[in-house]
Amino acid sequence: MSETHRPSGRQPDQLRQVEIQRHYTKHAEGSVLVAFGDTRVLCTASIEERVPAWLRGKGEGWITAEYGMLPRSTGSRMAREAARGKQSGRTQEIQRLIGRSLRACVNRQALGERVVTLDCDVLQADGGTRTAAITGAYVALVDAVNVLMKREKLKRNPIVGAVAAVSVGIYQGSPVLDLDYAEDSSCDTDMNVVMNDGGGFIEVQGTAEGHAFRRDEMDALLGLAEKGVGELVAAQRAALAG
Amino acid sequence: MSETHRPSGRQPDQLRQVEIQRHYTKHAEGSVLVAFGDTRVLCTASIEERVPAWLRGKGEGWITAEYGMLPRSTGSRMAREAARGKQSGRTQEIQRLIGRSLRACVNRQALGERVVTLDCDVLQADGGTRTAAITGAYVALVDAVNVLMKREKLKRNPIVGAVAAVSVGIYQGSPVLDLDYAEDSSCDTDMNVVMNDGGGFIEVQGTAEGHAFRRDEMDALLGLAEKGVGELVAAQRAALAG
Amino acid sequence: MSETHRPSGRQPDQLRQVEIQRHYTKHAEGSVLVAFGDTRVLCTASIEERVPAWLRGKGEGWITAEYGMLPRSTGSRMAREAARGKQSGRTQEIQRLIGRSLRACVNRQALGERVVTLDCDVLQADGGTRTAAITGAYVALVDAVNVLMKREKLKRNPIVGAVAAVSVGIYQGSPVLDLDYAEDSSCDTDMNVVMNDGGGFIEVQGTAEGHAFRRDEMDALLGLAEKGVGELVAAQRAALAG
Amino acid sequence: MSETHRPSGRQPDQLRQVEIQRHYTKHAEGSVLVAFGDTRVLCTASIEERVPAWLRGKGEGWITAEYGMLPRSTGSRMAREAARGKQSGRTQEIQRLIGRSLRACVNRQALGERVVTLDCDVLQADGGTRTAAITGAYVALVDAVNVLMKREKLKRNPIVGAVAAVSVGIYQGSPVLDLDYAEDSSCDTDMNVVMNDGGGFIEVQGTAEGHAFRRDEMDALLGLAEKGVGELVAAQRAALAG
Amino acid sequence: MSETHRPSGRQPDQLRQVEIQRHYTKHAEGSVLVAFGDTRVLCTASIEERVPAWLRGKGEGWITAEYGMLPRSTGSRMAREAARGKQSGRTQEIQRLIGRSLRACVNRQALGERVVTLDCDVLQADGGTRTAAITGAYVALVDAVNVLMKREKLKRNPIVGAVAAVSVGIYQGSPVLDLDYAEDSSCDTDMNVVMNDGGGFIEVQGTAEGHAFRRDEMDALLGLAEKGVGELVAAQRAALAG
Amino acid sequence: MSETHRPSGRQPDQLRQVEIQRHYTKHAEGSVLVAFGDTRVLCTASIEERVPAWLRGKGEGWITAEYGMLPRSTGSRMAREAARGKQSGRTQEIQRLIGRSLRACVNRQALGERVVTLDCDVLQADGGTRTAAITGAYVALVDAVNVLMKREKLKRNPIVGAVAAVSVGIYQGSPVLDLDYAEDSSCDTDMNVVMNDGGGFIEVQGTAEGHAFRRDEMDALLGLAEKGVGELVAAQRAALAG
Repeated sequence: MSETHRPSGRQPDQLRQVEIQRHYTKHAEGSVLVAFGDTRVLCTASIEERVPAWLRGKGEGWITAEYGMLPRSTGSRMAREAARGKQSGRTQEIQRLIGRSLRACVNRQALGERVVTLDCDVLQADGGTRTAAITGAYVALVDAVNVLMKREKLKRNPIVGAVAAVSVGIYQGSPVLDLDYAEDSSCDTDMNVVMNDGGGFIEVQGTAEGHAFRRDEMDALLGLAEKGVGELVAAQRAALAG
Repeated sequence: MSETHRPSGRQPDQLRQVEIQRHYTKHAEGSVLVAFGDTRVLCTASIEERVPAWLRGKGEGWITAEYGMLPRSTGSRMAREAARGKQSGRTQEIQRLIGRSLRACVNRQALGERVVTLDCDVLQADGGTRTAAITGAYVALVDAVNVLMKREKLKRNPIVGAVAAVSVGIYQGSPVLDLDYAEDSSCDTDMNVVMNDGGGFIEVQGTAEGHAFRRDEMDALLGLAEKGVGELVAAQRAALAG
Repeated sequence: MSETHRPSGRQPDQLRQVEIQRHYTKHAEGSVLVAFGDTRVLCTASIEERVPAWLRGKGEGWITAEYGMLPRSTGSRMAREAARGKQSGRTQEIQRLIGRSLRACVNRQALGERVVTLDCDVLQADGGTRTAAITGAYVALVDAVNVLMKREKLKRNPIVGAVAAVSVGIYQGSPVLDLDYAEDSSCDTDMNVVMNDGGGFIEVQGTAEGHAFRRDEMDALLGLAEKGVGELVAAQRAALAG
Repeated sequence: MSETHRPSGRQPDQLRQVEIQRHYTKHAEGSVLVAFGDTRVLCTASIEERVPAWLRGKGEGWITAEYGMLPRSTGSRMAREAARGKQSGRTQEIQRLIGRSLRACVNRQALGERVVTLDCDVLQADGGTRTAAITGAYVALVDAVNVLMKREKLKRNPIVGAVAAVSVGIYQGSPVLDLDYAEDSSCDTDMNVVMNDGGGFIEVQGTAEGHAFRRDEMDALLGLAEKGVGELVAAQRAALAG
Repeated sequence: MSETHRPSGRQPDQLRQVEIQRHYTKHAEGSVLVAFGDTRVLCTASIEERVPAWLRGKGEGWITAEYGMLPRSTGSRMAREAARGKQSGRTQEIQRLIGRSLRACVNRQALGERVVTLDCDVLQADGGTRTAAITGAYVALVDAVNVLMKREKLKRNPIVGAVAAVSVGIYQGSPVLDLDYAEDSSCDTDMNVVMNDGGGFIEVQGTAEGHAFRRDEMDALLGLAEKGVGELVAAQRAALAG
Repeated sequence: MSETHRPSGRQPDQLRQVEIQRHYTKHAEGSVLVAFGDTRVLCTASIEERVPAWLRGKGEGWITAEYGMLPRSTGSRMAREAARGKQSGRTQEIQRLIGRSLRACVNRQALGERVVTLDCDVLQADGGTRTAAITGAYVALVDAVNVLMKREKLKRNPIVGAVAAVSVGIYQGSPVLDLDYAEDSSCDTDMNVVMNDGGGFIEVQGTAEGHAFRRDEMDALLGLAEKGVGELVAAQRAALAG
């Protein structure tokens, strides 16, 4: 892959520096501050001993997610969604994506009749907030499940694999990994890829508003995503071992 | 590709019967009833001589979309979103997808300072409502633009290509094209693919809740989508020539 | 009655062409597309085996209605109520009227503890949408009740009579039957009349914003309505016999 | 007309005691407390020197109305609409009715580019709140217009007639005038009639949920309404002369 | 205390004329029209034989309050909160304050599992609406409790003391009691004080937007409040004895 | 003052450990993480070059505040206000308090026609979030104003004094300073006090739900607050000098 002039000076296939800090706040069963470069997202996992009405009596649990950005996590202040009285379409799309992604790594029968809510709140945004959120939420989820294991509430571990996510895109004609805001805002073809630690694809969401991408470009992007997710899964493991 | 036992008896790479009926209602500049088998969506294109506040004075137009399902378009009655007082996350995701997809085939400078709104209302649902909506909305958009051309409001045609969409998925272990409801509800890996008539990908949204898909499966699905979109673009052309 | 110059060339006491198409969509227990000239309304009747909280345990059912207009059913596009987040006062008035009108022809004890919801969605508007909706909803309701009869869920038929509706008004000084949009928008005295097949009045809603109507005018209007409803009831019977 | 056994002991064609108290509160340009028996409604008329956007530059004004019930104006406490976050369909129907009725007695060109808002708030309810509101709002409107006349803001009086309203219905088989709550709640056929002082009908809203009314019953009801409105117009004149 | 030039000519420590009229409307268990000068608030107390979900089975009751202003209770018309679809922050603050204040004089175990709702609706505003509301709501609450006592629903009286409220503030440099609108709108330091009849403070809410107040000023204000509340408690007693 | 047995072992007049960390996030003009013990609030100050409509053309600026709690900042997860679609009454009260408090230290003419929004988001709650928010927001505001000074947008410094806040209350019969959650939840008399650095009171909000406090208790509480705010102002100075 040829060299590009990324604003950050990174190689095309280079992630930003990833940091995963566990136990960031004290109340939640899982609480992780994840950083992809300057993007910082606080992911908490909260356990509640209830299930939604439509799951009652089925002997299985549920994983759901909510997403928000602090009003001044961004370059110019955004309106607070609680004050506006509704969540934007973008917010809803992202929290549905996070929920689906994390459900893909859980055996809901093994979880039993309880809900784990993953709250992903962006403290500082610099591109890739949804992929950082998924990557961090996985670690928070594992911590929360371990709390249940320690309390002997579970017969077996409901976590059936790891999940992580990264963005890829075409920047100035070349495929690059893990776009930051400077790249994201000047490129109109990007793709968010969620994968498990077995190399399986959980979600692929590619958008080419204005410029359609060719099949060979898509192949290159998927290759970059596989490399990136591999490194993110390693970072998750290291954090959980810490 | 090996034979599958699709509930409809279709071949794995076979679309449902596609019908595109123009001028279905009389008021809209473009009005198309599109059928993918039993899925029927009314797509209207409405022209308004205004632009959103954030585009004022920039000399370019906007394409936007709204999506809805009639409450009894489905097997059991759904709550009416107007009565509930808000659109679901799913509705918002779909209408954002339709809007982005159609913007990808329009030169907004050539459109000038006006808005085209694509309303896609599902009269009857049997899987694939969003892909039918995109495919039909393109024809309604062309009809509406032709109205502008006849009124000599445009110097050149702002349509820069055709756009169509189809779903693909893994059903009982095999890749299939254009899932109907019976397939969609029993398969947990599916992908909606939006392409232009030049073979470029505009949107790829693959979701594998529960079962991740492998890279070779993805390759097969993309191949099916390319075939399906090719046939849909031909159907659009035939309808517009009619 | 003296001749008038109606835009459509109709006689003062002449209905528009009425068409009642049953089984228009496949999921609903009753599904009727009704046309009063260019006004087209899709009326579905949906049965649910539940009652509202305030009827629980009383051994009787409920009939309710919802009404909507597709955004481009009209000459210029209207805002979508689901997107605006609320139904207009006009919408609520109309759906309350439809519900009351249809309840007037049902024995709710004989219906048993279930709800029939009549969804009336205007595909194309040209005046008289609420009267077309009531007239079509009656046929959809009968079809839905017949489904229950065939399934042997009812001991006796809860339908106790037919219901139909028509508008009347003073156009250019003369009373006319079944106003279309051209008449409706230039006349400020009109009345919607809902009647049963025994000649009884169920609802009379006359409005004279700007010009009050005299007692003799009201008598003439009620006479026209009686004639019109008589023909509509015949059309309903013919459709149900078809 | 034969005698009935009305709970109040009134004759069939007898109004409740009507009181119209002007200048009930001090801030509004018109402020009237109207009583129809135990029903008490505070009607204020507020002048604002603006017009709605759709009337700007047309040289005419607007009359609008809002209606509310204090939570404990009724026998059991109702939820406060401001707390519930929306007005009920019934509230919207009534305030639309009041607005249309009062616009029928105003020359909007003569009013000039200003808005008069009629707020009708029910302090105590005992049936007939909407007819009392219309009857009282007319007096408040006249007072407000007179304020404008004294300030020499108007060239000529925009009030072109008086407006009053009364309910009629079939109670225990006989037509009666001005139903109170005891009658209203046990009768399923009633009609609200708004008329001007020239004997013209402005609104007729008859509802027969459950029991349809015959043509001869309607004639009797309209006759009662004419008598009742005549007395109410006299009461308005007396109050304005006071 | 030195003389001030209050717009009303009152002495610095002089309340406005206070009137407390019981049984103002007929449906509510307690119904009081309270006047502090030109400020008039209708306070009703409604008993419901239910408790909120979070109190179920605890053997105790609840006191809650709602507050509203009629749109033209003020000098210029305010938007109706029910029409705007939400209560303002100010409204919510005030109704929370009223609820807390009245709960402070009730033994909720003695009340038993029922709710008393205090609706305080401002008919005419001239400053001090929240203090008038608290003072009047207490009398309405006592009347409602006495209804329960007469019905022998209570073993002992749950009222454990009287509660009244008054505002104090710094006007043109001097502390004054019971600010009217003319004073309130030109002074930026005021305090609402809620006390019981034993001289205990229940709520103190002092606000100095723009000008901070000194400790000695606060002492003077608290002294004025003690005097004012003493007189208000006497007025409550006189009204209840009437 | 006699010794108490505070859960934390603190002296009655002892603050928790206070930390004020500036430049916590990178986008906002002022960004402060303030900690009062385990209570942690992120306070950002955002400058926008606009004024609200009602201040246009008056040559002065505005200071406003918004407050939120992350869903799992507390012991059990709270519903997200953006998802519920509205801010609670408590949230609105607190953000109105923060806004008023900070406006008290700003000369709005000197600020010029711009808005500073103070977003106070609670990352972790352990009592006293509103007082921590005010104390931290002041430092963020000073940082933001200094950005304007450096950009030479201001002729003179609009900050006219420092503002800080602390809670006081009666815990087990004794007055204590700076209540943590363990104390707050078991005491029913507490007061939030906002003061400036000149010893003036800006806001005093004392609430005694259930137990009224005596005048001598109030004196003791005000004395504690004066001591606490003095130390907080010193901490603010130290942070700003750092």
